[in-house]
Amino acid sequence: MNDIESVISDIQPLDQSAMDAARARQNRLTKPAGSLGRLEELSIQIAGITGKNIPTIKEKVVITMAGDHGVVAEGVSAFPQEVTPQMAMNFMAGGAAINVLARHIGARVAVVDMGMASDIITDEKLLKRRVAAGTGNISKGAAMTRAQAEESIQSGIEIARAEIARGADIIGTGDMGIGNTTPSAAIACALMNQSPEKIAGRGTGVDDDGLKRKISAIARALSVNKPNATDGLDVLAKVGGFEIGGLAGVMLGAAALRTPVMVDGFISTAAAMIAVTLAPQCKNYLIAAHRSKEVGHGLMLDWLGLKPLLDFDLRLGEGTGAALGISMAEAACKILAEMATFGEAGVSEKE
Amino acid sequence: MNDIESVISDIQPLDQSAMDAARARQNRLTKPAGSLGRLEELSIQIAGITGKNIPTIKEKVVITMAGDHGVVAEGVSAFPQEVTPQMAMNFMAGGAAINVLARHIGARVAVVDMGMASDIITDEKLLKRRVAAGTGNISKGAAMTRAQAEESIQSGIEIARAEIARGADIIGTGDMGIGNTTPSAAIACALMNQSPEKIAGRGTGVDDDGLKRKISAIARALSVNKPNATDGLDVLAKVGGFEIGGLAGVMLGAAALRTPVMVDGFISTAAAMIAVTLAPQCKNYLIAAHRSKEVGHGLMLDWLGLKPLLDFDLRLGEGTGAALGISMAEAACKILAEMATFGEAGVSEKE
Repeated sequence: MNDIESVISDIQPLDQSAMDAARARQNRLTKPAGSLGRLEELSIQIAGITGKNIPTIKEKVVITMAGDHGVVAEGVSAFPQEVTPQMAMNFMAGGAAINVLARHIGARVAVVDMGMASDIITDEKLLKRRVAAGTGNISKGAAMTRAQAEESIQSGIEIARAEIARGADIIGTGDMGIGNTTPSAAIACALMNQSPEKIAGRGTGVDDDGLKRKISAIARALSVNKPNATDGLDVLAKVGGFEIGGLAGVMLGAAALRTPVMVDGFISTAAAMIAVTLAPQCKNYLIAAHRSKEVGHGLMLDWLGLKPLLDFDLRLGEGTGAALGISMAEAACKILAEMATFGEAGVSEKE
Repeated sequence: MNDIESVISDIQPLDQSAMDAARARQNRLTKPAGSLGRLEELSIQIAGITGKNIPTIKEKVVITMAGDHGVVAEGVSAFPQEVTPQMAMNFMAGGAAINVLARHIGARVAVVDMGMASDIITDEKLLKRRVAAGTGNISKGAAMTRAQAEESIQSGIEIARAEIARGADIIGTGDMGIGNTTPSAAIACALMNQSPEKIAGRGTGVDDDGLKRKISAIARALSVNKPNATDGLDVLAKVGGFEIGGLAGVMLGAAALRTPVMVDGFISTAAAMIAVTLAPQCKNYLIAAHRSKEVGHGLMLDWLGLKPLLDFDLRLGEGTGAALGISMAEAACKILAEMATFGEAGVSEKE
């Protein structure tokens, strides 16, 4: 059994006893039972994930993984490929949206180079897990070899382990990679047996012609590569991306260590689909932060059985939606931990 | 011109120049234009409200107003009336949901007695603006006199002024009052010309019989009192509540001082309907925090033309949804203020 298989076999069902205790406590707190809706559900899920009756979220991290994509040669993105490392540098300088929102919620941002085309960044804060200098053009062949797909997932597992060892109570996922809505849509089409028209959107903002090129590139990627929908590694290798594999690995690694994962938008959700194809029980450890404006995202969340927390028309990635979602998860746990019970507060119960 | 009329005449249109500047800056920040969806819209609205090109939200307050309701004699609530002051004491002790969420977002909670039936609380932190010891039973007559309705609104205006003078950059609204979904639903029915069945829900959790009693009480309240839908003060006086009038006053007072108001759930939205009936231009200063689980809330938000930020099935009140919404408004303003521009970060723009 290799490490990936071992991690998958380590992922346990949610702890029903902790969930029962959390639910019972929610019903003793000074509010009508159920009146905090999604916050109550979230706190109970996190109790089940962590195995703690009263879980707490203090240390927070957003893992933002960057990678490049050969398919940009097909004219599928509104921005040039050089933006991937430029934005990675922006992340390290603290000027990007994910930095602002991570500061807002008191989280760290861990930036990982999973395989950008350029290797010019020397800043030691950038975690280097480069599988290769960008993927192959999926409209003409495989994105990567099966071994590279395994390597990307393995790296994600190791990054998650390291962050949890540093104390992370929750992990948010994020991505950066010009062109990466194209492989993400291809993954979703492959796993859901959907047409590219139903899934692909405008990403960072392609025009009508760009959207046509994108849909065509995805259709050719599926036709040329024939990914096997029952084999997550095959789908990742044929039409995926290094940062997508890395994020799938983060989810598997965190789930094996009973740590909740706040899933960002379109790209992170494609990664979640790979993770859940490899390990269906991983799903219980995932929380969907938001429904993106990207066309197929709602269908992908439905396929996963995840109900998004926010509906803010976000379409940026980076982990921005995950950061907002983490703040909600933290609020949910604080409600469970910090509210007074009817008995403690001397408040009369329902008649 | 009395003070309420003077405040209403002070409410100005949003500052278009500040909104244009905020929108232009959003488009220069290192992200695809529009990719932060609701966060971008929020930051632009708050620029228009405050008249600042780059507004900031630092000082935050949730004003939670308590009042009692004679209509509880009709068996419309699942909890006994003694819970209103018990929960007010819980607010002051820091053990209620609003305290937990206010701490989470770094806000103060200002608790106001607008007219609880009981006057036993001696804690000086409780702001006393008691109009009377609870309203009349609206199913049999008016909730209050027109002079009392004016007094409740005037108190809300003064509370908002005091909080803004203390430095509040944003005000969240909240309520506590056993039975207060009944007058809130009656207000909505009167102003929207809707039937009680379409608006009234289970509040804190009445059973089927309780819901029937509640719908019947609202129908009788409308029939006995015949509130004039073009006169917000008349509707408030006949079928409203002291905390509802107070919250309407908070909204008017904040709008006159160009301060954004985060509107909580069902009761706060009924107050917003009173405020907007009195001063339609007040609407631009309001942000709807969430869509409550209470049946008619979505229709009420539609009537106001407000799009809720969150859809968490909350039905607690107290300002809990407003607290979460304030955190989103703060995040939106930080995005506008703190993100690097394309030029500053050396990131290439769209091709």
